[in-house]
Amino acid sequence: MRTIPKDLTATIRDVGAFVVLTHIHPDGDALGSLLAFAEIMETLGKRVFCYLEEPVTSLYDFLPDSMRIHTDLADLLRFIEEADGQVAAISLDCGDCDRMGENQEELLKIHPFLAIDHHRAHRQYGDLRWIDPDCSSTGEMVYELAQVLGADISATCAFNLYVAISTDTGSFRYESTTSRTLMIAADLVARGVRPDEVASHLHENFTLQRLKLMELVLSTLKLHESGQLAFIQVTRDMFERSGANFQDVEGFIDYPRSLRSVKVAAFMKEGKDGQISVSLRAKGECDVAEVAQSFGGGGHRNAAGFRFVGKTVDEAQAEVLAALIKALKN
Amino acid sequence: MRTIPKDLTATIRDVGAFVVLTHIHPDGDALGSLLAFAEIMETLGKRVFCYLEEPVTSLYDFLPDSMRIHTDLADLLRFIEEADGQVAAISLDCGDCDRMGENQEELLKIHPFLAIDHHRAHRQYGDLRWIDPDCSSTGEMVYELAQVLGADISATCAFNLYVAISTDTGSFRYESTTSRTLMIAADLVARGVRPDEVASHLHENFTLQRLKLMELVLSTLKLHESGQLAFIQVTRDMFERSGANFQDVEGFIDYPRSLRSVKVAAFMKEGKDGQISVSLRAKGECDVAEVAQSFGGGGHRNAAGFRFVGKTVDEAQAEVLAALIKALKN
Repeated sequence: MRTIPKDLTATIRDVGAFVVLTHIHPDGDALGSLLAFAEIMETLGKRVFCYLEEPVTSLYDFLPDSMRIHTDLADLLRFIEEADGQVAAISLDCGDCDRMGENQEELLKIHPFLAIDHHRAHRQYGDLRWIDPDCSSTGEMVYELAQVLGADISATCAFNLYVAISTDTGSFRYESTTSRTLMIAADLVARGVRPDEVASHLHENFTLQRLKLMELVLSTLKLHESGQLAFIQVTRDMFERSGANFQDVEGFIDYPRSLRSVKVAAFMKEGKDGQISVSLRAKGECDVAEVAQSFGGGGHRNAAGFRFVGKTVDEAQAEVLAALIKALKN
Repeated sequence: MRTIPKDLTATIRDVGAFVVLTHIHPDGDALGSLLAFAEIMETLGKRVFCYLEEPVTSLYDFLPDSMRIHTDLADLLRFIEEADGQVAAISLDCGDCDRMGENQEELLKIHPFLAIDHHRAHRQYGDLRWIDPDCSSTGEMVYELAQVLGADISATCAFNLYVAISTDTGSFRYESTTSRTLMIAADLVARGVRPDEVASHLHENFTLQRLKLMELVLSTLKLHESGQLAFIQVTRDMFERSGANFQDVEGFIDYPRSLRSVKVAAFMKEGKDGQISVSLRAKGECDVAEVAQSFGGGGHRNAAGFRFVGKTVDEAQAEVLAALIKALKN
């Protein structure tokens, strides 16, 4: 069991109404945590308003109650007014308040503002925080919170939490997966979650366009440094030929990464606006966060990224390649 | 906790020496269970001889103690002789004694012959059996057995069991994953297993040839029946062009299966000897075991297969397609 700051749990117990927030372009951990937290608060008799700047995409509309997430700021302001000052905000899985979207100033006016997050690089915004980078996911933290609050976890709440944990651990494959993570997953399954149903939504949810794009991207695979460095790329032309969109490339970097000889994998993506974004993944000793930082980006030791503006794909590729070969040799 | 037949545990407690077996072309569950069982027996003071007709392939040589598996039948016979009649055999994860390989007759001469397996279609060979199709994997059963026997599970034994369970549940994604499965995984992690290390061995262990083959196979993708039926194939020519081998196609059927619209996926493989083997996967209601049976094959409702001999790829494809369209309409 994790240690949760007592002032945070005390505030959650006291406040009668919650505005629940997460980051823009939300993934399964962001949305699953948000929806689970909302339901847990309601079982404790509180009023809840879930807000996100944009509607939930078709990738995540399978989440129970995803329809309850509001996107209209006027509705949010009305909720606050009706709560008569007795309202707190909470952001879940959002390490940087800039990632709350365009209305972040309006949102940060709510006090007390709470934050629950597992990102190591949390920007320390908000009045009260529980930040635990040792937790696999924000979903895991929301589960622990429910335990401390003595709140019941329903089958739908368990489903949302399982999606959250499963997303952020890559189906219990990442380093962040602890014995406690698996114990929690076991409890959620005991509460009615079907792991195959979750996996089907998360991993069997693809379009033909995505598979076509995967074929095109795989054909760009190049190995360097005796197979230690793998490079793939996607161009605007490939998006057009396949009919796929930018979202469809998620996870493609796992293919070069899956090669036995590979220590570093790079994936270069040509965006609509001439921007080139680069994702890096490392296995073992190589630190790709340092490489990303040298290009003005950031991330973790094993997973990082950055962007180029005003370069051609060829120029960008040559620069990244040189930097990665240098990093491999260090 | 599962109920294990008492005569089986009594025999295991009594016997001083064990010949430990599994099926040919062993996967992670077969090898992990075999090695874990062997170690558990040794902690109970028994002599153990692990036998497999063929050496462990490079895909699984990361398993602790995989070198201890013997492939020489003469060594096996000497072990039996030296045990002076006080020897039992046990097969793990082997549903059909035909799958024990060419020396099965010799092996089945050992008495008592025990079998532990989770395949529903177990052929009921052997003197004493524990067959539980509700267990996710044979690894899960070996864990339960260790609990009942009061045997310690070391870190290496835990690793072998985690590989076994993780392989047969597709990283805890398949329907067979229960709350108990995840509880056991949690306990194994508490004993020192690192889930990311296991995942890296199982999923980041591929060759460039495999990725090249994947690209070629993806280019064959065809959808039928408004996207409900997906078809991919691999020909001898593709194996030659990519330099990949038959083993490298494992898991390819998951790509067409991952399409949202797909209810049935088929993967047709042209073998060296003119044989054509077909793998079928279903999501939801369609029963592909019935289709496979109609071609003389078998399997589960959601995963089945069969073989053609003496047909061209085109003939085979037309027949399979017609049968699957009929099955979809039922």
